[in-house]
Amino acid sequence: MEKWVLASRPEGTPVLENFRLEEAATPEPQDGEIVVATDFLSLDPYMRGRMDDVKSYAPSVNLGDVMTGQGVGNVVASRDPKFKEGDLVTGMTGWATHAALSGAEVRHISPEVPPTTALGVLGMPGFTAWAAMHTIGEPKEGETFVTAAATGPVGSMAAQIAKRKGLRTIAVAGGANKCDLATNTFGFDAAFDHRAHDVKSLRGALADAAPNGVDIYFENVGGKVLHATLPLMNVAGRIPVIGTIAWYSGVDTSGPDMLPSVWRATLVKRLRIQGLIIFDHWHLFRQFIEEMAEPVARGEVAYVEDITQGLDQMPAAFLSLLSGGNTGKAIVAI
Amino acid sequence: MEKWVLASRPEGTPVLENFRLEEAATPEPQDGEIVVATDFLSLDPYMRGRMDDVKSYAPSVNLGDVMTGQGVGNVVASRDPKFKEGDLVTGMTGWATHAALSGAEVRHISPEVPPTTALGVLGMPGFTAWAAMHTIGEPKEGETFVTAAATGPVGSMAAQIAKRKGLRTIAVAGGANKCDLATNTFGFDAAFDHRAHDVKSLRGALADAAPNGVDIYFENVGGKVLHATLPLMNVAGRIPVIGTIAWYSGVDTSGPDMLPSVWRATLVKRLRIQGLIIFDHWHLFRQFIEEMAEPVARGEVAYVEDITQGLDQMPAAFLSLLSGGNTGKAIVAI
Repeated sequence: MEKWVLASRPEGTPVLENFRLEEAATPEPQDGEIVVATDFLSLDPYMRGRMDDVKSYAPSVNLGDVMTGQGVGNVVASRDPKFKEGDLVTGMTGWATHAALSGAEVRHISPEVPPTTALGVLGMPGFTAWAAMHTIGEPKEGETFVTAAATGPVGSMAAQIAKRKGLRTIAVAGGANKCDLATNTFGFDAAFDHRAHDVKSLRGALADAAPNGVDIYFENVGGKVLHATLPLMNVAGRIPVIGTIAWYSGVDTSGPDMLPSVWRATLVKRLRIQGLIIFDHWHLFRQFIEEMAEPVARGEVAYVEDITQGLDQMPAAFLSLLSGGNTGKAIVAI
Repeated sequence: MEKWVLASRPEGTPVLENFRLEEAATPEPQDGEIVVATDFLSLDPYMRGRMDDVKSYAPSVNLGDVMTGQGVGNVVASRDPKFKEGDLVTGMTGWATHAALSGAEVRHISPEVPPTTALGVLGMPGFTAWAAMHTIGEPKEGETFVTAAATGPVGSMAAQIAKRKGLRTIAVAGGANKCDLATNTFGFDAAFDHRAHDVKSLRGALADAAPNGVDIYFENVGGKVLHATLPLMNVAGRIPVIGTIAWYSGVDTSGPDMLPSVWRATLVKRLRIQGLIIFDHWHLFRQFIEEMAEPVARGEVAYVEDITQGLDQMPAAFLSLLSGGNTGKAIVAI
């Protein structure tokens, strides 16, 4: 088997040298375990946080350990009676060709949708969007929704949930192609390229596209889009905070201090700003699948995948994800 | 009659010259109106916001208009059948000896508690604390609660609600006397003088006093106390934002930018940060009175009033309130 381990911790933006490909003996399952041969591995922004040695909602990856991550693959050996060889499953395999996992941490996936959907639209990203909209966003017909990273697997799902509830949806994305994708594939009512705007002109564009103001700002980036959108929030607006990718590496905190104005807006507009980590919500996963699997299978919910070929490309594909180089859910085919 | 009008808008911290005392003819009630002769006038931090000509949750006071505010007094003339001369009432009288008010905007107050309680512990400040704790704070037995302005009418009520639910309560206040008041009168488990600490040492003191972390940070000041407390918040912590008095006048936004770290904490700790303006919650006022009036009358809920004598002292007492010079609910006796 082969696996990518964390070779060194990044200083600011990660580089290829932070990762090292290693060979190892393919594991044998212990009692209650299965061994999975991965077909597809997921790349997600949260992995950036795991590279740092700071306290967070999940443990850091130790130097020399396999990089964390979700995979899809087939069972090649099983000592858990719920699984047999050949079963198609998903679990936290890490960045590796094989993984030994406790059967309790693995689940079967439906053969009725492509297996990669278990990593994106029907996996953690889609579920994150669904849980954030259900528990914090609380979309109401006639309201207006804004998200950045609008063609990513989280933002695009959140927007489609909003759209199905009768909201006006506005996208911010990086580049003209992603803006086209946002409106043509994901059904956004408007889309803006953050690379073509500074904060002020982005705010003006959003204001024109949201004549009734913004009720839900789906926060998955931080930075410029937050500053552009915040003054447009309506009274009783909601800001689910599910990521701050713009601030993951090398934050510029030289000022000005934006906190007093954000706090004032929170008070004056009675905003609800709430963080969400999907690990707290697994008890809702079955409800999510029951609600969203059929619309995905019927093609009513669109998804886009950006599949890179080869385990050797994992780090490069991850760095591309962090800089917005991918389009759609980032996946690596093994 | 006499009244204080807004003479000029403050640049940063208000000064006495921003106010002007005027004489006027005592008003006659129109149909449906009553005229109230005020006995007590309330001073509250929100009044600072009304002095600025910026869009907020309530209209600014126009130059030359009477300063806004709540009063308690007796009906001296009535053309509303629900009120008769001599009735003890409260309403938005403004900073004045007399006011003509629509009967719909005025309410009778109980003779069983001192009339000044209608301005503090059983009025808008107490109700603000109660509503914020009920709708956002959601205190649970065994948790830990922190508030600044701990001896003020809002913070002290919020803390006593927390204490009655079995929480550990920690005060931040300005000066040793207020810290004594916090522990001796309001039952806080610990109290710290923000004037004796910088952010780091205040954080250390709070951390020692909150060995299990902080679950509710009741935000009524912003600034140093926020920065000291935020890193101590537990996962799923709540921050009701009901005021930012530290940032009302002359905010220093020179940096560093604290927003990225606050946003990261919001995500990592799944914080809920939510603004509350009491105007949205009047439908709960009856429930508040039913729940809290008896404990106040029985002396189970403590309150402290800081009563200044004379309408002529209104501006000076208000400036003192803004700089933390008062102790307890600021009231002026007419």
